[in-house]
Amino acid sequence: MPQRVRRVLLGAPIPTAREHHERLSLFLGLPVFASDALSSAAYATEAIVSILVLFSLQALSVQPAITLAICALYLIVVVSYQQTVHAYPAGGGSYIVAADNLGEKPAVIAASALLIDYVLTVAVSIAAGVAALVSAFPGLHPALIELNIGFIILIMWANLRGLRESGMMFAFPSYGFVLGMFLMIVFGLFKVHAAALPSQRVVADPGAIGSEAMLPFFFILLRAFSAGCVALTGVEAISNGVPAFKPPESKNAAKSLRWLAAMMICMFLGTGYLIRFLPQVSLYATANPAYRTVVSQLAAYVFGPNSFGFFAIQLATATILILAANTAFADFPRLASILARDGYLPRPLARQGDRLVYQNGIIVLGVLAIALVSYFKGELDLLLPLYAVGVFTAFTLSQSGMVRHWFKEKGRGWTTRIAVNGTGALCTGVVAIVILTTKFTEGAWIVLVLVSLASFGLLAIRRRYHSITEQLSMNGAVREPVADQRAIVLVPRVHKGVMKAIEYGKSLHAEVRCLHVSIDRRSVPAIKRDWDMYVDDVPLVIVESPYRSLLDPVLEYIDEMLEQDPDKTVTVIVPEAVVTKWYHLPLKENVAQQLKNALGKRRNVVVANVRYFLN
Amino acid sequence: MPQRVRRVLLGAPIPTAREHHERLSLFLGLPVFASDALSSAAYATEAIVSILVLFSLQALSVQPAITLAICALYLIVVVSYQQTVHAYPAGGGSYIVAADNLGEKPAVIAASALLIDYVLTVAVSIAAGVAALVSAFPGLHPALIELNIGFIILIMWANLRGLRESGMMFAFPSYGFVLGMFLMIVFGLFKVHAAALPSQRVVADPGAIGSEAMLPFFFILLRAFSAGCVALTGVEAISNGVPAFKPPESKNAAKSLRWLAAMMICMFLGTGYLIRFLPQVSLYATANPAYRTVVSQLAAYVFGPNSFGFFAIQLATATILILAANTAFADFPRLASILARDGYLPRPLARQGDRLVYQNGIIVLGVLAIALVSYFKGELDLLLPLYAVGVFTAFTLSQSGMVRHWFKEKGRGWTTRIAVNGTGALCTGVVAIVILTTKFTEGAWIVLVLVSLASFGLLAIRRRYHSITEQLSMNGAVREPVADQRAIVLVPRVHKGVMKAIEYGKSLHAEVRCLHVSIDRRSVPAIKRDWDMYVDDVPLVIVESPYRSLLDPVLEYIDEMLEQDPDKTVTVIVPEAVVTKWYHLPLKENVAQQLKNALGKRRNVVVANVRYFLN
Repeated sequence: MPQRVRRVLLGAPIPTAREHHERLSLFLGLPVFASDALSSAAYATEAIVSILVLFSLQALSVQPAITLAICALYLIVVVSYQQTVHAYPAGGGSYIVAADNLGEKPAVIAASALLIDYVLTVAVSIAAGVAALVSAFPGLHPALIELNIGFIILIMWANLRGLRESGMMFAFPSYGFVLGMFLMIVFGLFKVHAAALPSQRVVADPGAIGSEAMLPFFFILLRAFSAGCVALTGVEAISNGVPAFKPPESKNAAKSLRWLAAMMICMFLGTGYLIRFLPQVSLYATANPAYRTVVSQLAAYVFGPNSFGFFAIQLATATILILAANTAFADFPRLASILARDGYLPRPLARQGDRLVYQNGIIVLGVLAIALVSYFKGELDLLLPLYAVGVFTAFTLSQSGMVRHWFKEKGRGWTTRIAVNGTGALCTGVVAIVILTTKFTEGAWIVLVLVSLASFGLLAIRRRYHSITEQLSMNGAVREPVADQRAIVLVPRVHKGVMKAIEYGKSLHAEVRCLHVSIDRRSVPAIKRDWDMYVDDVPLVIVESPYRSLLDPVLEYIDEMLEQDPDKTVTVIVPEAVVTKWYHLPLKENVAQQLKNALGKRRNVVVANVRYFLN
Repeated sequence: MPQRVRRVLLGAPIPTAREHHERLSLFLGLPVFASDALSSAAYATEAIVSILVLFSLQALSVQPAITLAICALYLIVVVSYQQTVHAYPAGGGSYIVAADNLGEKPAVIAASALLIDYVLTVAVSIAAGVAALVSAFPGLHPALIELNIGFIILIMWANLRGLRESGMMFAFPSYGFVLGMFLMIVFGLFKVHAAALPSQRVVADPGAIGSEAMLPFFFILLRAFSAGCVALTGVEAISNGVPAFKPPESKNAAKSLRWLAAMMICMFLGTGYLIRFLPQVSLYATANPAYRTVVSQLAAYVFGPNSFGFFAIQLATATILILAANTAFADFPRLASILARDGYLPRPLARQGDRLVYQNGIIVLGVLAIALVSYFKGELDLLLPLYAVGVFTAFTLSQSGMVRHWFKEKGRGWTTRIAVNGTGALCTGVVAIVILTTKFTEGAWIVLVLVSLASFGLLAIRRRYHSITEQLSMNGAVREPVADQRAIVLVPRVHKGVMKAIEYGKSLHAEVRCLHVSIDRRSVPAIKRDWDMYVDDVPLVIVESPYRSLLDPVLEYIDEMLEQDPDKTVTVIVPEAVVTKWYHLPLKENVAQQLKNALGKRRNVVVANVRYFLN
């Protein structure tokens, strides 16, 4: 029954032989690996202005400067990553580069930052996608959380079924989104320069404007810059995906990095410029039913509210954001499986399920993302401050690793390469510190705590697995043959299932005793009578249980046997009913499992289950 | 570790020998068994007027008539139960009387009604207790749900620890409550007759007064009567507890029934009379922060708001209501254990834990009650309509059973006795139908559905247990000795734990093979090399798993072995690490349990666990 439900939900198993990767051209590879990065254009500008307005309306005037600074940072990071792509043609994610060059601890920190970042990617992308939907269809606003959770479950389910990501699946929405944004920006530029516009009116939640005016302006400036740095999320994906490009792989990957930067900077500059000319900007919190995304306000102004262009932009935005979340569902389980294979995460995360996907990783990511959006009620503006801390930590470690890499290699032009990656490492490192400081109280502290906990966790798991391997190592092991056995059959009452267990015990060529634990003395005579009538060839021991526990007297009896003769193995035979219908399960007790758990450190005890059948 | 936590939370085990019941005098027995019944005086009057006001302010004038009718019903029920107490000196709860006289199905319906009723007793009593607290300390209103859940957890915990209910624990709050109510009524009578009172002002939620004016007045009258019938809840408890009274048990129990009736009717009439003279009555919904219980409004009027008398009444009310919930925590697990012993509920409910309490029943009741108050947000006015349906169903079945009982016995004066219990059965039966009809849409349908589901569930469980007993019966059973065995040792890789399992397999005097499931072909040479180096005396079979499952190839191999030689038993030996620290558990996989679950209907397969140890 559960097997059948599983089959319907997830589909038939897929053999390992069918695992293969399609090689992607530059045109198709770009959207597959850059959809996450491109999608941040949907919320980066909004993130900046939402912070500035908290200081004062006048502060909004520094938005262009911040946008330009972030574009410069984008260029530095992309140039830096181009070198990574060439140096690691087999894929150079932060964990791999850090492990390769910086040692275990930085690698583990990079891995933790990435894992947490993937969870945030899902949460932020879905929240932003839902925000885009809600901006187009305001009637959906009351269902904010439900939509968030629903989309995550949908993507999780698609990935558990083994969704094959095809280049085409990404190409349409990604290029559609970019095209839509470009058209909006071009039309917008004409529109704002043709008309004589009134001065801008900014509306926001009561008390929001100027609520942080007590803070120094410089701090607010840095905080807005940090907020805008969400524009850089997703850049790392291309460096992970190098081997998926058609040869020459590294060249194509580097080219797609340049295209990504070009498109992203154009969209970011364009929206950042246009927003200054909107006659009215509303900057409500996501929780406010009047909330609309900044991009949707631009689209409504350029194409007209309820126009085809408006809805097209909104749907393209929602789609690319959902694809971005989907990317995390491919990346998180892959990284988790690498970590599990290296012993940093529990082994089941390394196991591919029968649909050829790392199902445990997918489930873990889905559950964490749902927990996150539930906790933050699906509100984009609450989730955004958590984002980017992890990304910039991973950037910094990866770029520092590259510096070390060139220093070790000392190939052609290594000093220039060190200069490039060194600049990257320095800039991203400084930004990481700025983000952590300025967003600390808004939520960055949560990420700091989580990354630290995750890092310690990974190291602890690694240590544990290492210790297990050591303890089980065959080096110098001596084989100790098992001496003769003794068997105990647990007898709740005399019935057919118990008879099977007794016969099995006799077949072990061992000394067999049966053990009945009596909780109610009144039932003892009946057991004895049945025993005399039906069994009789094996001794029955009846022990009383003063505390009404079924297990404690069994354990005591085993202890006595082990004390008498510590070398002989005791096999405890537990008769167990086989339940063939799932709805009979609640009536079943798993005595064998309970006994196994209770055995604790007793050595030389084996638990055997003799199963009997019920219709 | 979990064992230690358990000990601290629940205390050390208590031996069976310490189970004994203290015999109670009339003075101490009355509060123990009647606290639940007495506590309904705290909300019965409020339930009536809250319904009437929905029709019109004028409708409030029929409240005295309804109060008198319910008092008459109370007398009928108490007289009727006096006969039960004499006929069943060993305890005559509805389930026992119905099972004894009416057969299985009515008994099961009575049991289901009672079980659901106990859950409602906890929910309603706690909600009413919290309402009394909140009326005294309005600042607590926002924490309504949390207080409800907190109190339930507290009572559940106390009962899991094996709270010994002592007569004194009940005597103080119960007599305190009755005394307080009497003083309030007497002082109140003086006060209202001394002053010339202005006409009464009724305040309620906007739109509440007259909101049901479209319904026929007669229907509202019956609904208000039904609402007031919550006054009769808890009467049955004394008939359950007869053997706990000092001899002559039945006489003392009957006397305490009469005292209960006298006190209850006085309190009910008194509050019902006084409320007509309150200068202002507020009848807000519980959810409204301005909500105050009717009793608290009376107390505030009689003793003055914030007076000692006011707080004393509120605290006494809250205490007796919490005791009433505690009573359900004694009764539900006891009834559930009787039902489990008779095979109507899963056996674990019949098991007394090491603290000499039916812990599973306590946990089930606690969880259900928490679910109920959470769903209804701890609002008393939403919970009350569900109450009393089950009580009156149980009354009717119990009284009908008594009629049958006298008819079978035909002892002295049996016709009179039949007349008394017949009247009881008829009245409670009619009231049950009235309650079900008039409260149907308000929530009584839920109880109807739950009682039906529970009844079917109990019968289904009984049928299942019966079928198990039949199938396992030794009648005509033939003993089939187990033929020679074959053993398979599962080998994930060659390590010390596996060596132990192989040695155990060899000690079985069986043909032993080792089985390695290969998911990744690349690891096969290493296994083969280790095998040649360390084992070599037992054959190793390597099977590939095309779908990456660890279990499917094992099952296929077992199937092959069974096909070759269906009579030989196959023992599958699973090496398993013993985890000694709870925080290592997440790194462990329970292969043996998974294998057992997957074995399904394969006969002649035994699973044995050879455990190895890790520090």
